[in-house]
Amino acid sequence: MVYLDNSATTRPEKEVADKIYEMLTDKFGNPSSFHKVGLDANDEITNAREIIAKALYSQSEEIYFTSGGTEANNLAIFGAAEVGRRKGNRIVTTAIEHESVLKCALELEKRGFEVIRLMPDSKGRISEEQIFEAINDKTILVSMMYVNNEVGSVLPVSSIKKAVRRANAPALIHIDCVQAFSKTEIKPDKLGADLISISSHKIHGAKGVGALYVRKGVRITPIMFGGEQEKRLRPGTQAAPLIAGFGKAVELIPDYKEQSEKIRELNSYAKQKLSELDSVIFNSADDASDYIINLYVPSFMTSQTVVQHLSSKYGVYVSNGSACAKGKKSHVLTAMKLSDKIIDKSIRISFSRNTTKEDIDALVNALGETISDYPA
Amino acid sequence: MVYLDNSATTRPEKEVADKIYEMLTDKFGNPSSFHKVGLDANDEITNAREIIAKALYSQSEEIYFTSGGTEANNLAIFGAAEVGRRKGNRIVTTAIEHESVLKCALELEKRGFEVIRLMPDSKGRISEEQIFEAINDKTILVSMMYVNNEVGSVLPVSSIKKAVRRANAPALIHIDCVQAFSKTEIKPDKLGADLISISSHKIHGAKGVGALYVRKGVRITPIMFGGEQEKRLRPGTQAAPLIAGFGKAVELIPDYKEQSEKIRELNSYAKQKLSELDSVIFNSADDASDYIINLYVPSFMTSQTVVQHLSSKYGVYVSNGSACAKGKKSHVLTAMKLSDKIIDKSIRISFSRNTTKEDIDALVNALGETISDYPA
Repeated sequence: MVYLDNSATTRPEKEVADKIYEMLTDKFGNPSSFHKVGLDANDEITNAREIIAKALYSQSEEIYFTSGGTEANNLAIFGAAEVGRRKGNRIVTTAIEHESVLKCALELEKRGFEVIRLMPDSKGRISEEQIFEAINDKTILVSMMYVNNEVGSVLPVSSIKKAVRRANAPALIHIDCVQAFSKTEIKPDKLGADLISISSHKIHGAKGVGALYVRKGVRITPIMFGGEQEKRLRPGTQAAPLIAGFGKAVELIPDYKEQSEKIRELNSYAKQKLSELDSVIFNSADDASDYIINLYVPSFMTSQTVVQHLSSKYGVYVSNGSACAKGKKSHVLTAMKLSDKIIDKSIRISFSRNTTKEDIDALVNALGETISDYPA
Repeated sequence: MVYLDNSATTRPEKEVADKIYEMLTDKFGNPSSFHKVGLDANDEITNAREIIAKALYSQSEEIYFTSGGTEANNLAIFGAAEVGRRKGNRIVTTAIEHESVLKCALELEKRGFEVIRLMPDSKGRISEEQIFEAINDKTILVSMMYVNNEVGSVLPVSSIKKAVRRANAPALIHIDCVQAFSKTEIKPDKLGADLISISSHKIHGAKGVGALYVRKGVRITPIMFGGEQEKRLRPGTQAAPLIAGFGKAVELIPDYKEQSEKIRELNSYAKQKLSELDSVIFNSADDASDYIINLYVPSFMTSQTVVQHLSSKYGVYVSNGSACAKGKKSHVLTAMKLSDKIIDKSIRISFSRNTTKEDIDALVNALGETISDYPA
């Protein structure tokens, strides 16, 4: 298996799977129970919360577990909009956010909020100037991703705080770090973030768990109601096995510097090899995240067909855009004003720290053969 | 370990844990991806959905996966209230629902809905007459549990449909079957239910996954927004490992008749043995579910202390009320108009199909010694 779809999901590390298994079989108690098997489960949650807080340069009480990135984004956006509605009406975001941010913004627009969606350039980039222009003193929420999941562009999120200050806006700042977390340092203070979304299954943990960082002193309202868990911001029996696995996945994050160097080299190698297949054109910017390469081949059939062909014939797994969109036309490439023809033929290759040069060679070989087999 | 807190959570069956491990290590793809490792994960979801649909005497397209019972209840209640608000304003529920239903009802009350909460009798029972009296032609939602999680009372939920018809109400009927599922047959038609909540970790599956049955043709709105998953009623990458484990747990549900007979016998045995400890008084009704016994001992210190004592000294795990309430005073026993003194001293014993007579003996021995050690 040559797995190059790490922006869709990653393979859980063995230690993560083992931890989850141990929780399921030995520490299966309800973490809110007062007996030992409950307290044991709760201790694991406490431990995971501490590990994750530390990795996010924050405190344990600032970490709230959710069912994943989508829920973390929903909680951040609706929770902040509800609290902010007395202070203003404007929400600033971009046209290239993840579906879970885009659709929340659309829903808030239906409910009467003014939503400003910054448009990217042809390489998927958003500029500082755009952020400064969009934020005014009625802005109650800015929601922006750190790294785009389809083309890898890195957004200038740390400028948001400056823009909010300059506009004297009552805005909370939400940064969707689902693609960035584990790959680069996430420091809430440096990013100027009040709310940060992360997801376990994008960092070699399990699906079904994520977290929202909520800066101490920042109040948002819940989107679900029930028991006393997660200080009532997120009720429901905590998924202790997944949370413990999430903690383990975070513990296994390697040194950022070494990892970045390795991936930079891998990215260069991949781009060079891919360039040798003449007819490959890159959609991603040169300064995009090294983990993501979005490209198209003019002679290709539709990308969905290519994805299936590479999978069935070569065991090479790549994607056509975001998995969550399930084959719908990419809103990111559309916002970049690429033609429908290009969008239809674009594929995304995404790396993890476990990707090797051999994986790249297998991909390039498979792509090369496919291009030969299906000439224009 | 003598685990008698199965209403809080159950121990996952080994086959469930194994299935989850297999998913985490082999079928880790994003179920929305088009390559093999994604399609494999999706096939497992399809399979689990079929198994669960069959167990609920329904169709696959009527099953929507959520992060658990709390989310299923929130989705059912807010989703139905939002759709129903043009037709009426009344919501009928009871005072003994799970926190996740109670708190949703409270939130809807704040938003302007009229909420009718039926009060139980001193044994935690709700009558058919109360249901008929409460439902009028402005009722848009009836939300009621099948089996109460604290005292085990079985609610006359199948009368709701009759009452709705008689009142000519535009109401959707939501039945919280979290405690009933896997223990008794759940037939939506027989129950007259439009919406049914179930949870995996109460039926020997993992925490972090549940499902909402939505009758074909019934429309409710989502509470979260994002990708295309679960027909957009519940976006976010599906927790494929947990869902596959949920399917496995449902597959392992034994024959209802045999199971019921076994538990009836176990319940009789437990009640007889407990009665022999004079000073034990039962809060549960005689016609309550055989899986739950709520009792109090007048000479006891507070139940939380007893729970911890039984755990640390005897390895016997019981609870003081609902785990989700984390030690807050039981709203169920309060609604039953028990005195604060009784509520403070009440404990819940809850069985599973794996509970044995030896477990009961260990409990009775531990309780007996505790009563002797701490006389009034």
